[in-house]
Amino acid sequence: MKTRYGVLAFLAFAAAAQESKPSKPLVIAEQGSFFVGGETKALPPPPANAPGGRGNPFASGDVTVNQMYVQYQIPVNGNRHTPVVMVHGCCLSSKTWETTPDGRMGWNEYFVRKDRSVYLADQVSRARSGFDATTINAVKAGTVPPSQLPNVLMASHQIAWSIFRFGPTYGKAFPDEQFPVDAADELYKQMIPDLNSLLPNPNPTWTNMATLAVKLKGAILMGHSESGFFPEQSALINPAGVRGIISIEMPCETMLKKDQLATLAKIPTLVMFGDHLGDVQGFNNWPMSFDSCQTFVKQVNDAGGNAEMMSLPKMGIKGNSHMLMQDKNNLQLADLIIAWIDKNVDKKR
Amino acid sequence: MKTRYGVLAFLAFAAAAQESKPSKPLVIAEQGSFFVGGETKALPPPPANAPGGRGNPFASGDVTVNQMYVQYQIPVNGNRHTPVVMVHGCCLSSKTWETTPDGRMGWNEYFVRKDRSVYLADQVSRARSGFDATTINAVKAGTVPPSQLPNVLMASHQIAWSIFRFGPTYGKAFPDEQFPVDAADELYKQMIPDLNSLLPNPNPTWTNMATLAVKLKGAILMGHSESGFFPEQSALINPAGVRGIISIEMPCETMLKKDQLATLAKIPTLVMFGDHLGDVQGFNNWPMSFDSCQTFVKQVNDAGGNAEMMSLPKMGIKGNSHMLMQDKNNLQLADLIIAWIDKNVDKKR
Repeated sequence: MKTRYGVLAFLAFAAAAQESKPSKPLVIAEQGSFFVGGETKALPPPPANAPGGRGNPFASGDVTVNQMYVQYQIPVNGNRHTPVVMVHGCCLSSKTWETTPDGRMGWNEYFVRKDRSVYLADQVSRARSGFDATTINAVKAGTVPPSQLPNVLMASHQIAWSIFRFGPTYGKAFPDEQFPVDAADELYKQMIPDLNSLLPNPNPTWTNMATLAVKLKGAILMGHSESGFFPEQSALINPAGVRGIISIEMPCETMLKKDQLATLAKIPTLVMFGDHLGDVQGFNNWPMSFDSCQTFVKQVNDAGGNAEMMSLPKMGIKGNSHMLMQDKNNLQLADLIIAWIDKNVDKKR
Repeated sequence: MKTRYGVLAFLAFAAAAQESKPSKPLVIAEQGSFFVGGETKALPPPPANAPGGRGNPFASGDVTVNQMYVQYQIPVNGNRHTPVVMVHGCCLSSKTWETTPDGRMGWNEYFVRKDRSVYLADQVSRARSGFDATTINAVKAGTVPPSQLPNVLMASHQIAWSIFRFGPTYGKAFPDEQFPVDAADELYKQMIPDLNSLLPNPNPTWTNMATLAVKLKGAILMGHSESGFFPEQSALINPAGVRGIISIEMPCETMLKKDQLATLAKIPTLVMFGDHLGDVQGFNNWPMSFDSCQTFVKQVNDAGGNAEMMSLPKMGIKGNSHMLMQDKNNLQLADLIIAWIDKNVDKKR
């Protein structure tokens, strides 16, 4: 397997290197944005002593929550391949997949240039999907105690450097680091508050991703980190539209029931991990996550499925961070994924 | 003036009607996203009894705040015209300018198809720009009282119907209403919490817009509603890059000083208002806003400037809502703006 992927990786790198600064225009058949899901919720009544009183029109009425914003581009030859839905991780938005922190092409455009329709979804409660602020306002109004505030996750620069595996300690990069660490400040600007603690169970993003796949008459769902296992969760809610699963760098669920594994076994699944999993001081989560996914992949295959673990360093591709869609070799990695899609999803349509 | 614009409006409508369902591919020379501005802030120390204690790495370190996310598309002939920066209003994101609630082309793509480079900015503290959640977390931790929570604005469906002037009372549309009210539920999904109350003064969005205009070596700044006067505020901070101002439906500042008016008088300015300003029961803000902008336009012109008020109903264009970039005649209105740009900005480059 190492040799096979070694050659593939080299060819992919040679092809990708030519495209990171595109000279050819991008030709789009259709682009736009829309929402999936969302439900109406009545604002709670304000206290009688609220500013403007109960008659303040801003303090009553209905709002929409749990909707998911989706932005898409369909290339002219988009019907040749299965659409790809990309969902970002913790403390990030769909910006994850766009221009890299150091200004190179992101996976969203690269996949479109490879004739794939791409759908970028902001997770429910994040970015353009909005979030339910009623509890924050109720605490401010004094009708609910502060302990009920959501746990809003703000990941610091220091946390990002460690968890995203830029180097062994903050400010120091691994010698072979693939993340463009000189542009780390631009990554930090992408990191925005994560309000997932507000969400009901099941996470509406899972349901909305499944609904989107049906709406698209079949789609490949791709998740990363916090959302890495969302494609599987979506398929377990409704597999009808899910043609493929791409799970990047996350803990895997290893306690699924037999019927759940049987559902997932019908969907080609790719799991991808980068390098230096155990090399960051004080963070031992990545080796555990990798092991859980090794187990999960085996469970799916034992159930008759087609799941594959791509461990990049085992394929001879060294130095990749957790943000591998932004790493210096990001288009090489995209080519590996595209080759996997062509072989395991599109050729079997 | 009515006759002149009546003919122009008719021609624009005829041209625009053909484009709302494009058959020709969109050809993009370059697209991507980046951030403007942003500053590093140390997270406040957590209380000693915080979960994980003071040693919890998620509770300390530095975060980036006040950055502005910008998404852009440059058409192949984009260098023929001045780039346009579009900034959304209250409780909304850049989704404002994209596909309309009923699925038609938005101004972002239409301007690109008219050879304009378009830059969509999410306001600081909104959507993909993120927001500073440190106060919310400090209240949850008990180190700050609930009264210090930001005032998070969630505009209800009922508020939107009234303030956006879909009809005289909630659920009832004006007979000539241009907003696609059958798709109002899709608009409500765009409405997300507004945390502008968190922002310092001057609003970092103003500064970032001015910085962006310089970075682009000249740009037209367009604002709407809450952001309607942001282009003027940006130009007052730094006019160097501001080649034109388009202000849509907002209250205008009428107490500017002589030197401020002298600055704005050097920049061609267009103000646009829709219909039914005084026709919504219980909301009298729009006639006042219109009057303030009439005064502002006169002040700029008295200072030797080139400011124009386009009152759509006075031009014979009836029924436009506050969300005129989403109204059924949105591309007709875009053509009016484009014609104004060509005459007042691009022909004078």
